[in-house]
Amino acid sequence: MSAFKKLVEHSQKCSRFQHLSAICGWDAASMMPAGGNQARSEAMAELSVHIHGLMTQPQLADWIADAENENLNAEQKSSLREIKRQWQQANLLPEKLVQAKSLAGSKCEHAWRTQRGENDWVGFEKNWREVVELSREEAQIRADAAGLTPYDAMLDIYEPGTSSASLDDLFSDVKTWLPGLIDQVIEKQSTEQLIAPTGHYPTDKQKALGLEVMKLLKFDFEHGRLDESVHPFCGGVPSDVRITTRYDESEFVQSLMGIVHETGHARYEQGLPKALAGTPAGEARSMGIHESQSLFFEMQVGRSDAFIAHLARMAGNQFSGPEFEQENFKKIYTRVKKDFIRVDADELTYPAHVILRYEIERDLINGNIKHTDVPELWNQKMQDYLGLSTQGNFTNGCMQDIHWTDGAFGYFPSYTLGAMYAAQFMAAMKQTVDVDQVIQSGDLTPIFSWLESNIWSKGSLLTTDELVKGATGETLNAKFFQDHLKARYL
Amino acid sequence: MSAFKKLVEHSQKCSRFQHLSAICGWDAASMMPAGGNQARSEAMAELSVHIHGLMTQPQLADWIADAENENLNAEQKSSLREIKRQWQQANLLPEKLVQAKSLAGSKCEHAWRTQRGENDWVGFEKNWREVVELSREEAQIRADAAGLTPYDAMLDIYEPGTSSASLDDLFSDVKTWLPGLIDQVIEKQSTEQLIAPTGHYPTDKQKALGLEVMKLLKFDFEHGRLDESVHPFCGGVPSDVRITTRYDESEFVQSLMGIVHETGHARYEQGLPKALAGTPAGEARSMGIHESQSLFFEMQVGRSDAFIAHLARMAGNQFSGPEFEQENFKKIYTRVKKDFIRVDADELTYPAHVILRYEIERDLINGNIKHTDVPELWNQKMQDYLGLSTQGNFTNGCMQDIHWTDGAFGYFPSYTLGAMYAAQFMAAMKQTVDVDQVIQSGDLTPIFSWLESNIWSKGSLLTTDELVKGATGETLNAKFFQDHLKARYL
Repeated sequence: MSAFKKLVEHSQKCSRFQHLSAICGWDAASMMPAGGNQARSEAMAELSVHIHGLMTQPQLADWIADAENENLNAEQKSSLREIKRQWQQANLLPEKLVQAKSLAGSKCEHAWRTQRGENDWVGFEKNWREVVELSREEAQIRADAAGLTPYDAMLDIYEPGTSSASLDDLFSDVKTWLPGLIDQVIEKQSTEQLIAPTGHYPTDKQKALGLEVMKLLKFDFEHGRLDESVHPFCGGVPSDVRITTRYDESEFVQSLMGIVHETGHARYEQGLPKALAGTPAGEARSMGIHESQSLFFEMQVGRSDAFIAHLARMAGNQFSGPEFEQENFKKIYTRVKKDFIRVDADELTYPAHVILRYEIERDLINGNIKHTDVPELWNQKMQDYLGLSTQGNFTNGCMQDIHWTDGAFGYFPSYTLGAMYAAQFMAAMKQTVDVDQVIQSGDLTPIFSWLESNIWSKGSLLTTDELVKGATGETLNAKFFQDHLKARYL
Repeated sequence: MSAFKKLVEHSQKCSRFQHLSAICGWDAASMMPAGGNQARSEAMAELSVHIHGLMTQPQLADWIADAENENLNAEQKSSLREIKRQWQQANLLPEKLVQAKSLAGSKCEHAWRTQRGENDWVGFEKNWREVVELSREEAQIRADAAGLTPYDAMLDIYEPGTSSASLDDLFSDVKTWLPGLIDQVIEKQSTEQLIAPTGHYPTDKQKALGLEVMKLLKFDFEHGRLDESVHPFCGGVPSDVRITTRYDESEFVQSLMGIVHETGHARYEQGLPKALAGTPAGEARSMGIHESQSLFFEMQVGRSDAFIAHLARMAGNQFSGPEFEQENFKKIYTRVKKDFIRVDADELTYPAHVILRYEIERDLINGNIKHTDVPELWNQKMQDYLGLSTQGNFTNGCMQDIHWTDGAFGYFPSYTLGAMYAAQFMAAMKQTVDVDQVIQSGDLTPIFSWLESNIWSKGSLLTTDELVKGATGETLNAKFFQDHLKARYL
């Protein structure tokens, strides 16, 4: 058997255990009763150790070296590149550091769940200090191995190929026009009347509505399901994608568009190349590209006039009231507001939240600032970008997100990269697909066919730059995002 | 570290992987969309191979030998006995035979799913021949190792310590009185008017009723849940027990009592000794004892007058109609009828179905009959025990059960042993607990406390005989079952 073949079979073996991890992880978030947590955590930890053991088996180094000398076709070469990348990621860090970071992260995150509500920065800082230290240690090891700066080495986990140099360029441009655009739009919307939802929206009706929207978006129910969890997510495996939402019976806005968002993630997973299933090349390209698909569904398609019309019509099958009028629906889903919380932010202010976090975590991981500097920097930047003070307000300031509690530094830029990619994909798609007409028709197949052939079916065979260039004719260009925002909001 | 300690830690490690298998198995039966099956089957098979690998690691033989020379207390000795038993079971069979039987069984079972409906004995026989041959081979290997007859060695998998000699005694006694009793009861019931359910009973109401009954039975919802599956079962792990039922909107009878049955299984699992969790001694004693708990709930408690009164009252919260009158409820749940199908059989005719299967599978595995003799033997015994002919009727004859399709010979007796143990436990309980009054009161705690201290908390620390003797003062005595049936049905 060729070394390449051995590597492929080994990847498939690992992916079978990851399958079990994904399903049991979904179960823990959406099905498991509280009392099952202790034994489940132990079982999941045992599985993690086993998977890590598989991914660090000593013979893999030889197989990779041998495979690099084998006569491989282009697809196999891409596959080998991704296998090697995952192998490097798994073997880079000393076991001791992985365990120490995992422990410190769990401790910090667990305490944060109560500290955040109590605005307890002092308590949080004590735990977080260790997470930051260990994350810097991790970043330095990654940086030394990759010849990158520490923060760029962390970025590489989530968004391979992206550097802070390119993000600096991208975001400094955004900062020149975004604050002004936000002000302009808020001014424009200030005279618009919006009817906010104030009724009672029963869960079963919201669920029926969500399922109908998923059908419109051609979610494949033979290979996935919709359930509930406290924090909505897209999990499972490509052959069985599990998306979740959370229903609030006092409103429908979040759950409904949340389902559209997660369906975007899900269709990407469902559309990954089946022939490469179980190998790294068959997986989603990156966090940013994953987010581009959920945001393509949520922002590019989901908030278009034509789709809003479908949503209003479908909502009318379950509910009635003036808040469900199409024009009002559109206002609800395009209302811009400067506010503190990223996860509740609208399409326009969202990038400001991300840029703020990016700038802070970049300097923190590169050792240019101390973790105790973060609250004041947060406050300054919130004032600069959104005109809001978080002085003394940690709950709605630097303690609002879960990401940093367990050291996921480098993740935040993916959100805005995703929004930018989504806008660029839509602009390219519109050159060959009459998108508005297609959405109006109620059969969105041409849209999905474009995404499938240009994005989904590529898995990780291409680099992100190659993928984006192949789909749109150029690499990331934030102009499309800016144009999209202006067209929608001005 | 002592060898015993090493064995305990090894058992816990295995049990963590078995935890993942149990949850993903539950998911496959109750949640997974059809398209997820292929990848799931591969993941589950990979996990099985891994668990088998762990359970057959070569150092275990040494550890067991060493542990047997260590200074262990009584509980540790019992624990070691069970660890050794599981180790022997896992190491007894050559890998090749396990795989061949698994393949032949899957093939036979898969084809059987359509062959049964088509009454296709000829097609079935072709696949089943190999299953029987491989099962005989398995039984012979087990027999040689244990110094037992082939069939007794198979019995030992499900019901350690039970022999066909004792079953022959037990069942030949039952055969002296059961057919007459059945006739007598049918004669008695022939003049009773019963109002069968003919309405529409929506799933959500049946589910609400089922959950209310589970609360009455003190199912621990912090450590378990109720869901739906085609074939109801009790799965999951002791800290998170998953029971399922199947709703038929044209009747409520099966689902309702099915939930009572599975809750019995579940409370046994939930009540197993937590200090021994993850070790063989912390597991349920045997299939027969497990069934004794589900049948204790379903038959001893569930069909008592006092409990039927609760069921009728609770059903009245969801439904109305004459079929829900207490007296009619009782008639529904105690109606005796000679019929073909074991899984639909009533409490009184059920043992006849089991004895028939026992006698056939015993002679088949011991090589005294050929597999092609089975249809005619089935027909003869059905005529003898229940007065029904299955001549040419394979669908409702020897092809009705799934057990033999994949070679689970030796399992059937557990059902009737369970019914007998349940009756004996109830008789013993009644010496200290005023059971009828307790059920009437609506707080069944004294019943559960008895079961918990006498059965559940013992796990597998005692042998079945020790367990039954400790709980009731004597080993299995079928007289209690006979007395129970006479008291209820005459």
